[in-house]
Amino acid sequence: MNFNIKAIISILGLLMGLNGAFMLLCLPVSIYYGDGDWPALLIAGLITLSLGAIAWVLTRKQENGGLKKRDGYLVVTLGWLSLSVFGSLPYIISGEIPDFSSAFFETISGYTTTGASVLNDIESIGKGILMWRSLTQWIGGMGIIVLTVAILPILGIGGMQLFVAEAPGVTPDKLKPRITDTAKRLWLIYLGLTVTEAILLKIGGMNYFDSINHALTTMATGGFSTKQASIAYFTSPFIQYVIIVFMFLAGMNFTLTYFGLHGQLKKVWENEEFRYYFGFTAGFTVLVTIVVFLVTDNSFEASFRNALFQLVSIITTTGFVTADYTAWVPLLTVIFFMLMFIGASAGSTAGGVKVVRHIILLKNSILELRRQIHPAAVLPVRLNKRAVSSEITFNVMAFMIIYFMVFALGAIIISSFGYDFNTSVGAVATCLGNIGPGFGKVGPLDNFAIISSPAKWVLAILMLLGRLELFTVLILFTPYYWTKH
Amino acid sequence: MNFNIKAIISILGLLMGLNGAFMLLCLPVSIYYGDGDWPALLIAGLITLSLGAIAWVLTRKQENGGLKKRDGYLVVTLGWLSLSVFGSLPYIISGEIPDFSSAFFETISGYTTTGASVLNDIESIGKGILMWRSLTQWIGGMGIIVLTVAILPILGIGGMQLFVAEAPGVTPDKLKPRITDTAKRLWLIYLGLTVTEAILLKIGGMNYFDSINHALTTMATGGFSTKQASIAYFTSPFIQYVIIVFMFLAGMNFTLTYFGLHGQLKKVWENEEFRYYFGFTAGFTVLVTIVVFLVTDNSFEASFRNALFQLVSIITTTGFVTADYTAWVPLLTVIFFMLMFIGASAGSTAGGVKVVRHIILLKNSILELRRQIHPAAVLPVRLNKRAVSSEITFNVMAFMIIYFMVFALGAIIISSFGYDFNTSVGAVATCLGNIGPGFGKVGPLDNFAIISSPAKWVLAILMLLGRLELFTVLILFTPYYWTKH
Repeated sequence: MNFNIKAIISILGLLMGLNGAFMLLCLPVSIYYGDGDWPALLIAGLITLSLGAIAWVLTRKQENGGLKKRDGYLVVTLGWLSLSVFGSLPYIISGEIPDFSSAFFETISGYTTTGASVLNDIESIGKGILMWRSLTQWIGGMGIIVLTVAILPILGIGGMQLFVAEAPGVTPDKLKPRITDTAKRLWLIYLGLTVTEAILLKIGGMNYFDSINHALTTMATGGFSTKQASIAYFTSPFIQYVIIVFMFLAGMNFTLTYFGLHGQLKKVWENEEFRYYFGFTAGFTVLVTIVVFLVTDNSFEASFRNALFQLVSIITTTGFVTADYTAWVPLLTVIFFMLMFIGASAGSTAGGVKVVRHIILLKNSILELRRQIHPAAVLPVRLNKRAVSSEITFNVMAFMIIYFMVFALGAIIISSFGYDFNTSVGAVATCLGNIGPGFGKVGPLDNFAIISSPAKWVLAILMLLGRLELFTVLILFTPYYWTKH
Repeated sequence: MNFNIKAIISILGLLMGLNGAFMLLCLPVSIYYGDGDWPALLIAGLITLSLGAIAWVLTRKQENGGLKKRDGYLVVTLGWLSLSVFGSLPYIISGEIPDFSSAFFETISGYTTTGASVLNDIESIGKGILMWRSLTQWIGGMGIIVLTVAILPILGIGGMQLFVAEAPGVTPDKLKPRITDTAKRLWLIYLGLTVTEAILLKIGGMNYFDSINHALTTMATGGFSTKQASIAYFTSPFIQYVIIVFMFLAGMNFTLTYFGLHGQLKKVWENEEFRYYFGFTAGFTVLVTIVVFLVTDNSFEASFRNALFQLVSIITTTGFVTADYTAWVPLLTVIFFMLMFIGASAGSTAGGVKVVRHIILLKNSILELRRQIHPAAVLPVRLNKRAVSSEITFNVMAFMIIYFMVFALGAIIISSFGYDFNTSVGAVATCLGNIGPGFGKVGPLDNFAIISSPAKWVLAILMLLGRLELFTVLILFTPYYWTKH
């Protein structure tokens, strides 16, 4: 095995160091609110920071020039895993979540921007720890941005090349873990949108703490809330609409947002994934609004807002809740279940399958019918007016098939712990899609506290698989990966 | 449009004529049992036979030489539809199922070998009509044999070329609706196995009527029973084992059975689809037997028999029932739901996706991971030690994707009529997969009598789509199909 182990450890050390620094950022919050958790945050932060710093210092002088492609798969998976292991320290040391399985579940649910939570009394948790919980999602979102624009395309994962060709200043040359200019620009947008949302939420009537926390977890399409009732707690329509807008923005390709902010709105509208993402959301909003208006006592505005909020929350894989989508009518339960397999735009912080893949699958399905009649004709899928290579279409189909296989296997395993059909398929769909709320006993008004430890580990693995576009993790389980070559 | 309309009508006429003749076959049964339905069978038979004969006589002198590929799609879809329309006459005229939607549902459920039934008091139905009901499935099975060995390969549907290359004496030349020698040979096997099973069931203690009916619907992987309780009515283990064996045989590629009967057992075992089909059934039987034994009071033998019966029934898409698979534990509910997406062998009378497609999908998924590491390597899926062309793998993936799309759309439509999540997804999965029993309100102990007329029509379309391998029907809805070329 010719891995560049030094370089791998160096990056993991850097990640851990940054992670530890973020933990220490929560220290003043804890002290300010006097929740008593500051020693835990200090200890966890110092442990993580020092271990990271030691690893980085010991390995930073590299003999050869950085990572190779094969190292990339390992560093990404190990990166998310090590963040999740050390990120759970504040929960454990403070005793807010003493059990390691639960703490790890909560942490990986954060870093993967899933938002499934084991907490069933969030208001009782110290503010410093809640801040850390929100930050894990925001850090996860940052990680996803650099992953999608700078790493996955080079690893050749699932058609990611497609959208990156659009990104400013990215040349997919040799994999080097430098944070590219692109990632830096997109991070700036990410930060800017987070600050803007926090200000708007404060204006809307949230306190500073809640507005910052919800802004952090909105932009990460994470969905952790500081309230057990999620956004249903904040009855202000202004607050709910602000969150809807920012969830939608967080589900947009950040590269497009970059163009949009530079006044190139035509470029945004010409992007097919954006138009499908927008049209899809709009279309379902019309349908769901009508149904909700008919079956509830809500006013038309409240029906529209509830429909739109739940739809954008699920499509963007955020997972905030203002109403129980499983309590309306079966039609909406089925629709929300199917929507868990959509996901928002590639290049956003959203998890799941992604709209661009569905566009390719849909167009290819229609073309495949045409190919039956004209077997000799070359009929490539066209995206943004360019032909998509058959290799990419092939890869996107394989991705979707593997996604369903992982879903089926996951549901079988979770149901083997005794959870009913709806709970099992709901928990697996929501964790694999990095969404948050599911169905049955893990529905929008429930949480994952009732899930047993072994099942939590299975769901944690599913979150990681979904977040890292399946291939990145699954490749590590093939013998070919480990063969010297 | 340059369809060979004369030739199309000629074939449809021939099919209808044969269909009418089969109706008249039920006449003596009705008279013998004195159920009073003989006038209905006579009238329906004469109408169908005469219309068919007229159509055939008027069009049989064809100027040009038979059907072209494009005519093929139309004739197959119209064939199944016209059989189902006229096949529902005996139910309607006799008044046993007076409502056209229900009668059509029952009939297309027959011809597509699905076995979903609207009858909720089967024992009250006249024996002549029940005989007709069983015959619709047996005729459907005959149709599927000729379709898969002689027509679909030429239409280029979903990798069907793959297994037909194995069939004796098939040369996929110009599409001509002559019943090939191969089809004749396989029909002989189909008939022979049906007779053998009927004799064994009679020996096991069934009366002549029940043994013939169940033999007809077993070999068609249809699953219509003459008893409301399905095979649970027949408590004899011998009868249940006989049915298990013949369901399994009906789910085998008939070409392989042909080789097996000619002593070429090595050829059977060397066939990869057979080995997966066998291994898959065996593996799940071990798992399900253990679970059933643990959670019920059944003896080990009864647990094994119940597990094996339900598994073989669902995998082969037959749909007979001896126990309620939704009443055991959630794990088994989830497993049986997932199994609805498997289907048995290509070239059998089974519906659904088919094992061979799953082999290709599974192998390709593993290879796709390897292709990420070695993008330049050419790594084709290998089946029966031969490389599968990437076009076929591509097509199989597209088939599976379209299958899921149709499933999702179907479930949304069915749930819009107000049926709960489990009933909706269960009804769609079982109808699209041509199985029979579903989940929720259409579970193994229930029937489709409670389903509203509009929902019945949707499910009927799904049965037809599933039975005709999706493409054959969907192609008719593309504009390209209807463009002159």
